[in-house]
Amino acid sequence: MLDLSTYVAGPSATMTLAQLGADVVRIDPIGGAPDVRRLPLAPDGSSLYWAGLNKGKRSVEVDLRGEAGRDVVRSLLRAGGEGHGILLTNAVGQPWLDYQQLRTHRPDLIMVHIGGQPDGKPAVDYTVNCEVGLPWLTGPADSTAPVNHVLPAWDLLTGLHAALSVLVADRARRHTGEGQFIRINLAEVALATMGHLGFVADVAVNGGGRRRDGNHLYGSYGCDFATADGRRVMVVALTSRHWQSLIELTGRREVVAALAEAMGVDFGREETRYQHREVITALLAPWFAERNHRDVVAALDRGQVLWGDYRTVAELVDAPDGLLARSGLFTQVRQSGAGTFPVPRPVSRAEGWGDDTTLLAPAVGADTDVVLQQWLGHDLDTVRALRASGIVGGR
Amino acid sequence: MLDLSTYVAGPSATMTLAQLGADVVRIDPIGGAPDVRRLPLAPDGSSLYWAGLNKGKRSVEVDLRGEAGRDVVRSLLRAGGEGHGILLTNAVGQPWLDYQQLRTHRPDLIMVHIGGQPDGKPAVDYTVNCEVGLPWLTGPADSTAPVNHVLPAWDLLTGLHAALSVLVADRARRHTGEGQFIRINLAEVALATMGHLGFVADVAVNGGGRRRDGNHLYGSYGCDFATADGRRVMVVALTSRHWQSLIELTGRREVVAALAEAMGVDFGREETRYQHREVITALLAPWFAERNHRDVVAALDRGQVLWGDYRTVAELVDAPDGLLARSGLFTQVRQSGAGTFPVPRPVSRAEGWGDDTTLLAPAVGADTDVVLQQWLGHDLDTVRALRASGIVGGR
Repeated sequence: MLDLSTYVAGPSATMTLAQLGADVVRIDPIGGAPDVRRLPLAPDGSSLYWAGLNKGKRSVEVDLRGEAGRDVVRSLLRAGGEGHGILLTNAVGQPWLDYQQLRTHRPDLIMVHIGGQPDGKPAVDYTVNCEVGLPWLTGPADSTAPVNHVLPAWDLLTGLHAALSVLVADRARRHTGEGQFIRINLAEVALATMGHLGFVADVAVNGGGRRRDGNHLYGSYGCDFATADGRRVMVVALTSRHWQSLIELTGRREVVAALAEAMGVDFGREETRYQHREVITALLAPWFAERNHRDVVAALDRGQVLWGDYRTVAELVDAPDGLLARSGLFTQVRQSGAGTFPVPRPVSRAEGWGDDTTLLAPAVGADTDVVLQQWLGHDLDTVRALRASGIVGGR
Repeated sequence: MLDLSTYVAGPSATMTLAQLGADVVRIDPIGGAPDVRRLPLAPDGSSLYWAGLNKGKRSVEVDLRGEAGRDVVRSLLRAGGEGHGILLTNAVGQPWLDYQQLRTHRPDLIMVHIGGQPDGKPAVDYTVNCEVGLPWLTGPADSTAPVNHVLPAWDLLTGLHAALSVLVADRARRHTGEGQFIRINLAEVALATMGHLGFVADVAVNGGGRRRDGNHLYGSYGCDFATADGRRVMVVALTSRHWQSLIELTGRREVVAALAEAMGVDFGREETRYQHREVITALLAPWFAERNHRDVVAALDRGQVLWGDYRTVAELVDAPDGLLARSGLFTQVRQSGAGTFPVPRPVSRAEGWGDDTTLLAPAVGADTDVVLQQWLGHDLDTVRALRASGIVGGR
């Protein structure tokens, strides 16, 4: 399939499909797409962000400003049978990428367009996130300003929805022979997700009541605690068993029972634990504050409570007991120029899935020759002539 | 396919597949799964969260504690051809759900298991999120404690990865006739995502340098601003055109040019804008603070800068110019008992996709009779006998 996309959503869609076995060819404008130098950068100036989101793909470098270069793209769309004739893009204001136009070149074309707003206007994760209300629910209860998330969650979710669309449309095409034009936009992914999780219904039915609430878990009991030696843990009592275990291991069984009786409530119910989360946190906090991290963690593990350590990103990568070390998902890879760093295999583990061929990102244009030869049947002289005319770049 | 899952990741996977056309049957224990009363609740006590994540599915209610009920599930796995024989679950410590065991009942079984930790231990979004480092990067630069995200992003991403796995495995089965056992876990989805976005490589190659940074966009220029009338907007200048437009419309062209010359830098480069974001924000803020929201927004629109309004969830749902009103994705639906509220169609828009049959959630057990008749060929007396023995519930 062809990937003519930039930034996070589109590239993450095709990278995920590449890791699941798709043959993904990036169409890069001469010199690379606008995000090719996006931070963070390696010491050689290459983008570690770009390398992460474009691994497992090949890159063909084409001058997209003129018809000759666009003809190369249209030829690549025409090439091949099953699994070909698929284009993913987030381009805006490019009439040559109009679906009905492109379909005249390949009648069974599958095209997925990732947009920003429902009306076609552009948007990015940050300008969508503020619209859905979550920044007013994030951060300490006494914050006075909105708090943005750092993870581009809407981009990533949009990317996976786009990847799903490709598979669904390709499956349909195998039955019907028909292509499809599928449109997804960041804003509606965010909006629909707020619907799926009950935020929208809560406003419509109850007028909405959820308030900003620091690090407390919503709807059950969970909170973060500081230990005596300055570390922090997140502790979650989702089930009744977790809860019993938590008050037992912290020595709070009697006081909680007395409290429940005095208040006439049952902390065995998660709504009740949620409702009285501040009191619970105040009762539990001293136990954590009086103990070193090692002893806290040992007790939580013995009690089989759900908990996690707060780590920095550096600790995530470097700590010998951090998540990266505990997972077998990453392999050290030497990305040409950028250096050597750990790169993840596909997150879905199945026998035979996720070999190590999808861990490297291409240099921009690196596969121009081979793809034009393989897909279009060009000989090397034809490719060289295209390059001499400035229609393609790379090698 | 059969859905034997709880909480967010699994149910969102199968809900997404149901909205894309899959026939999803929930297997619910008698009385419903542990998350059936999760907040937020409707006035009748039913869960708006559960309704959101289980729309478009049917529900069969089975006593899963005994072999007779498990036999019902195994029979349902055996039933049907293409598109059947698929099970998604996040159950832990249930030997009867062992893949090799179940395969003896259906050799081409596709099973997707969603776990918590790489070693099989349980985890939830909150206990994974703290481990990957993002809470130390979220919130104002002078915060001293970690800030959790509110969106269960890892759950949702894990769900979509699980949905992709189902489609990929089903596609392979059509070619080979072979089923697959696929394992995904929350922690590795979070970890791999931190790899895809360059966080991991940045630490490995550069030692990591990213700091907590309030609402600034990472890697380019973007920040939130307060207007004279107490509203807030997020403004992003991702491209050089956005940037030129932003300094033009705020009347900062000359001062920015003088600054660039004095500092010997080029604000046309996004790394430079990112590096000097504090100065830029300080220069721009008074323009926003001196104007009412209406005038700010009109100028931003004229300048075609990327921007978004900070809204509360209530405003998202109720404001006549909010995202929900601007999107045509939602339909008012009457969910039995809970009330009437707007529900989203699939986010991927294509002709013929996403009709209104996938907007309602079932009552627990509501489809027991019809599914046992359709899939197993039982007559109504047989189903009634199973119910009389307590093996199935519902109707």
